[in-house]
Amino acid sequence: MRLTTLLVSGVTLMAASFGPAAYAQPGGRQAALMPLPAAMTTGTGQLLVDGGFTVALAGPADPHLEVAAHILIQRLGAKTGQFLAGAPVAGVKATLTLTVTGVSATVPAPREDESYTLKVTPTGASITAATSIGINRGIATFAQLVANGPQGWAVPVVTIHDQPRFPWRGLLLDVSRHFMPVATVERTIDLMQAVKLNVLHWHLADNQGFRVESKVFPKLHQLGSDGDFYTQDQVRAVIRYAADRGIRVVPEFDMPGHTTAWLVGYPELASQPGPFAIERHWGVFDPALDPTREETYQFLDRLVGEMTSLFPDPYFHIGGDEVNGEQWKATPAVQAYMTAHGLKDTAALQALFTTRVQAIVAAHGKHAIGWDEIMDGDMPKDVAVQSWRDAESLKKAALAGHAGILSAPYYLDLNWPAGRHYAADPMPDNLPAGLESLILGGEACAWSERLSPENLDIRLWPRAAVVAEKLWSPRAMTGDGAAMYARLDAVARDLASAGSRHESAGAAMLARVAGPAGVDALLPLAQAVQPLQDYRRSALRPDAVQSTPLNRLVDAVPAESGQARAFGLAVEHFLANPKDVQARAAVWRPLMVWAQGDTLLGPHVAATPLLAELAGPSAKLARLADAGMAAAEALHTGKPMVDRAGREKAVADAADAGAELEFAILPAVARLVKVAP
Amino acid sequence: MRLTTLLVSGVTLMAASFGPAAYAQPGGRQAALMPLPAAMTTGTGQLLVDGGFTVALAGPADPHLEVAAHILIQRLGAKTGQFLAGAPVAGVKATLTLTVTGVSATVPAPREDESYTLKVTPTGASITAATSIGINRGIATFAQLVANGPQGWAVPVVTIHDQPRFPWRGLLLDVSRHFMPVATVERTIDLMQAVKLNVLHWHLADNQGFRVESKVFPKLHQLGSDGDFYTQDQVRAVIRYAADRGIRVVPEFDMPGHTTAWLVGYPELASQPGPFAIERHWGVFDPALDPTREETYQFLDRLVGEMTSLFPDPYFHIGGDEVNGEQWKATPAVQAYMTAHGLKDTAALQALFTTRVQAIVAAHGKHAIGWDEIMDGDMPKDVAVQSWRDAESLKKAALAGHAGILSAPYYLDLNWPAGRHYAADPMPDNLPAGLESLILGGEACAWSERLSPENLDIRLWPRAAVVAEKLWSPRAMTGDGAAMYARLDAVARDLASAGSRHESAGAAMLARVAGPAGVDALLPLAQAVQPLQDYRRSALRPDAVQSTPLNRLVDAVPAESGQARAFGLAVEHFLANPKDVQARAAVWRPLMVWAQGDTLLGPHVAATPLLAELAGPSAKLARLADAGMAAAEALHTGKPMVDRAGREKAVADAADAGAELEFAILPAVARLVKVAP
Repeated sequence: MRLTTLLVSGVTLMAASFGPAAYAQPGGRQAALMPLPAAMTTGTGQLLVDGGFTVALAGPADPHLEVAAHILIQRLGAKTGQFLAGAPVAGVKATLTLTVTGVSATVPAPREDESYTLKVTPTGASITAATSIGINRGIATFAQLVANGPQGWAVPVVTIHDQPRFPWRGLLLDVSRHFMPVATVERTIDLMQAVKLNVLHWHLADNQGFRVESKVFPKLHQLGSDGDFYTQDQVRAVIRYAADRGIRVVPEFDMPGHTTAWLVGYPELASQPGPFAIERHWGVFDPALDPTREETYQFLDRLVGEMTSLFPDPYFHIGGDEVNGEQWKATPAVQAYMTAHGLKDTAALQALFTTRVQAIVAAHGKHAIGWDEIMDGDMPKDVAVQSWRDAESLKKAALAGHAGILSAPYYLDLNWPAGRHYAADPMPDNLPAGLESLILGGEACAWSERLSPENLDIRLWPRAAVVAEKLWSPRAMTGDGAAMYARLDAVARDLASAGSRHESAGAAMLARVAGPAGVDALLPLAQAVQPLQDYRRSALRPDAVQSTPLNRLVDAVPAESGQARAFGLAVEHFLANPKDVQARAAVWRPLMVWAQGDTLLGPHVAATPLLAELAGPSAKLARLADAGMAAAEALHTGKPMVDRAGREKAVADAADAGAELEFAILPAVARLVKVAP
Repeated sequence: MRLTTLLVSGVTLMAASFGPAAYAQPGGRQAALMPLPAAMTTGTGQLLVDGGFTVALAGPADPHLEVAAHILIQRLGAKTGQFLAGAPVAGVKATLTLTVTGVSATVPAPREDESYTLKVTPTGASITAATSIGINRGIATFAQLVANGPQGWAVPVVTIHDQPRFPWRGLLLDVSRHFMPVATVERTIDLMQAVKLNVLHWHLADNQGFRVESKVFPKLHQLGSDGDFYTQDQVRAVIRYAADRGIRVVPEFDMPGHTTAWLVGYPELASQPGPFAIERHWGVFDPALDPTREETYQFLDRLVGEMTSLFPDPYFHIGGDEVNGEQWKATPAVQAYMTAHGLKDTAALQALFTTRVQAIVAAHGKHAIGWDEIMDGDMPKDVAVQSWRDAESLKKAALAGHAGILSAPYYLDLNWPAGRHYAADPMPDNLPAGLESLILGGEACAWSERLSPENLDIRLWPRAAVVAEKLWSPRAMTGDGAAMYARLDAVARDLASAGSRHESAGAAMLARVAGPAGVDALLPLAQAVQPLQDYRRSALRPDAVQSTPLNRLVDAVPAESGQARAFGLAVEHFLANPKDVQARAAVWRPLMVWAQGDTLLGPHVAATPLLAELAGPSAKLARLADAGMAAAEALHTGKPMVDRAGREKAVADAADAGAELEFAILPAVARLVKVAP
């Protein structure tokens, strides 16, 4: 294995690499670290990871440490395809020794010492940490470092001293809009561990489903979940599974809005009379708990009591977002209450509700956490805020003494480019000194209106790794989006070996869409498009409901087209070197594939509805790619582009791709056409 | 959806199809049935399977029936990507009604009524059967019939009356050589259900591992399994899981040979003194139970008692194969016993052992079944034989009144072409009339010396479906190998949607092998090769052990190259039409890809050991493909081939591809070169 030293944002970084273009080769397979470690020095040589690889444990006995060793062995076996001994060995002859100085608690706490030191020499490796939690972070690094070289699988000689920038690095998993089975949740936890995320924010209840068994109020899950809920035994198993990986589980019971599914079984909680049905549409809805009746708080006290017993984390998420107040405005008794208590609007009424609920949560020994709106209440300082707004909202909370986490720029379901997530920092600008420690970190969010168990990984991975790096690595190391992208392909492959189905599910879903046309006919289009970003899919399909199939091309393709990104770089290079034959070819080759795709797909579009909606996008792509080829030819030869008006129309038409897609190659082609003579 | 009527082996068969080449289009995605049903008449129109699809149950309540409905709904959801209601509905308005006249037993019996009638009209469908077992077979057919057409997912109008040709249609899963986790076993059961296999033959103990918990003799699994064993709770769960799918579970405890793993914990069972260690190599070994000591039978009586309580099936497999007798010959006490009892050789001694063990099995209320060798014992007529030899062996057993099942031609781990399995019939030639019912069926076998949980599906699927068809469909329908192949691609896709990882695992393993070269560079070689057939891999690598990695190209590629098969057909067509430009192009195109593959892969072969061993095969493929192109050109132009000697040498050199591979395209290229002018 050749060792390459790279300078990333001023930090000397070494990576196991296989070619001159390590960290810069799209589709490359070199090992890559994400998140980048805080400090790393490299040496010469490597430690082989062959069939004789063994792990030893040192320090006080801790079941979590044994599990960590087992996880690493499983992970390395899956990555390398070797059969590794399944249990830690005693003694000092092991390939890797995991050493702790203390025993970890049953579940991780919010500010654990996650630091670790990883040392690799040609004869052995060691990871040392305060507890199994730091070891968990170290084994994630170790697993990423393993790469295949001329002598086989190996880890380069290296010394890493690492610790996180932020203590709260979460992933919000919405299981209400679409239920995610336990196996899917556990796979998600595996992948979180691989990129050092440490909080599973389990969004368990919303208008479209109440997903956890309540023994106290069983109609919550019985009538509010279509039978798709977690039993309390399953919840406990998931919490154990996460704890073994150094990951906290924070449950969210969003209230007083987002509660339609609660009201199916308990309509008396609403201010308007029922009956209520599970909400099937997406959006913000009127039903809300009635904040004016004592019975509401009695119910919540018992429910919070039950759920705080089930979930050991000190934080309990009460939601609090997006209450439109319509039901309260339409209820005379609520209006009378507001008048009697001098509440000027429904926001003030919600603030009162939040204050009451926070008191209930506190009485059960927990810190409340909620979305921005809960700061409207009269909140004690131990309450934390999660912002769907922006870092400024966190700053405001911090100035009032509240800790906060940022989510606004990390919604993975909105199909932003990874670089856009990466550019956002949780630390508010101009935060007064001394308040930094109140910025706990952030959370990537997987809202599941358009995520199913089938395509979840396509939306989450590898892009959650980008957020994970933003939250773990020193700020100075996370400023370079290009360097991040250069590692992302290798990280994607590593995550696939850790269980992510983003590749396999994508392939299977494309095969389903392609149907009789065959995948080869669909690939040119599939690689040129991306799903619409932000909420534009919702705007186009306000009729979409929970059961609307997520089996279309838009559901199968990644948020960001790697081919389009590579094409964009090729166009940039070509524009700087328009006479260069190689540079022209690098632009020309993919354009030819895209220009010809419709001749393969076109004959099949009538075969199925999944294909029929692609007739337009496929034809538009052909014209767009034609325009790009004409422009490239004009730039290369210096002769004027033929049919400029037609080319410009092709570019303009491509702005609306159709089928809830957008052409990822559009900006680069538009640029070619614009600057062509 | 267009309906195409095909004549398959004299039976009118309809398939949902999407083009003129239905059932004959490699890579096509049309629905296809495998096994073919016994009788099928088609109509006009179709029944949509959209998001409103529902299932109703009729007849006596049966939990197995409810599970069957649930399985179908899950299966259709996975296949179509639609969200289907998760529970059977009451009343007659459902899309599909499942009707039984009786309740199935807790676990299936050996000769259940598996027949069913499936009727599909444009407004609804019904499956009727005696019990949930026939329903299980019917839902497998229904799921295969679902295909995507112009109006969306639908089932064609059809009436099917179906029943199996043989009652015993098994799959032997060897979990001793390489352990297969419970999830893998359950996935295998899912896929067996999808192709109507009905017996999981669980090969639980062999030299390399004793894989089931014994509470009576715990050192069996504690010392004989490396910790990789099934708890009795897990065994019961697997049996339930299989029973829900109408599948029996027959355990095998192979004895008196193949028992090294038993002897690690209980060396006193052997005729030679221990200590013994788990066998790590593959092959036939000396250790065997001592048949001359009463203690051996006392041990077996207790073990068989425990295991017959755990496994409810009336059959109990005692193995009995491949005893080399070496330990017995080397043991004076055994020799003295043989002399005293007039046993002329170790086969006679084994016959005595088998007779004793059969009596023990019978005393515990079970029928013994074993491999061919057990017929050497003095066996009562209720004992059945499983043949690793041939159908003639079954005939001999049948003439002596014994039932039998055939496995010899169905070893899926030997990497034979599917057509070779398909050509073998379990029914012996010239079996005297009246004995046919003694031929119970057969079993596909997955011996796991070179199967891991990772590549299991690559070896099993879709090829086990071919054996399943041989065992289910009327003999007259299973004579046409070409027609079988024409359906196999669609069946492969259907099985992938049912959970098979043959595609996804293959892709991930190829990516690992390709490493820094990238998959695109590896594909030309990967698609031109197959693993060596029969036991030739073992012959080349006698040093292979249980921990030898199964991560090489040979482990990742399917047993049979679809590209090579298509190429063979193209060559056949070209040889009949050598002047035809299209025919030449169809041969030329893939040859060009194979000829150029080495220019992509060659530069990377030094990067890793997984690639290094491919340097030779890759270079040989380039020369072989070159020779094919030269021969095709000569045939097309009529001009003599340039460098005949060199071309012939390229063909000769390709006979030994290297890396335990063979060139799947070799026969077709050799033919081109041979007949070229």
